[in-house]
Amino acid sequence: MDRIPILKLGDALLVTIQVDMHDQLATALEEDLTEKIVAVEARGVLIDISALEIVDSFMGRMLDNIAAVSRILDAETVVVGMRPSVAITLVELGLSLSGVKTALNVERGMAFLQRRLEAAGVGGEDAGADDDG
Amino acid sequence: MDRIPILKLGDALLVTIQVDMHDQLATALEEDLTEKIVAVEARGVLIDISALEIVDSFMGRMLDNIAAVSRILDAETVVVGMRPSVAITLVELGLSLSGVKTALNVERGMAFLQRRLEAAGVGGEDAGADDDG
Repeated sequence: MDRIPILKLGDALLVTIQVDMHDQLATALEEDLTEKIVAVEARGVLIDISALEIVDSFMGRMLDNIAAVSRILDAETVVVGMRPSVAITLVELGLSLSGVKTALNVERGMAFLQRRLEAAGVGGEDAGADDDG
Repeated sequence: MDRIPILKLGDALLVTIQVDMHDQLATALEEDLTEKIVAVEARGVLIDISALEIVDSFMGRMLDNIAAVSRILDAETVVVGMRPSVAITLVELGLSLSGVKTALNVERGMAFLQRRLEAAGVGGEDAGADDDG
């Protein structure tokens, strides 16, 4: 596989990482993601890493990088589905993913992005007169 | 990788297939999927195959199988993101996926499931008084 699929879900993009990332795949993902953020005017990026048993420093940096680039394009990145052991490893590696928002699963990540959009007055699929934020 | 992650999105489950399926992985996916349908009371299953450049008869049978099992558990299966070349190959192989609903992308698949739930009077996240179906 040379490309990781990026799925559009409302105002967000969803990426499910299932394989170990190597240099080329990571670069391709970053490129594809930035292009797609602009193409579909995405406001958020959800990265599901529930399939990963190990997250090394390379992967940690990649997540940080994606979050930084997305932020410049005005899209928030949420990493979802992290296993407890991965969280422990990341902290042990000194990678606290400070620039990345995390959520327990895709639904919570989606809800976070939705709330953020509503607070910003952008509104997603069902944005109503919700101005008490 | 020995497991394909299954993500919960509202009333549906989302599976993104990114790697070639072999026997064991397919069996594991079917088992995991059926267990998760029951566990979270899912009403739909979305299978994204946009990453696949080739779908052989094994994969075609697996999709048919998943759809059949899900249907017995009262969950509709929608295969999304199929490439044009894959559609051609499937028909040439004599696999018309007659038991499987397809949609162009995840959003359309999701919308289809939502409409179906509303028509059945189950209602999803934002089911209103939408009874004109």
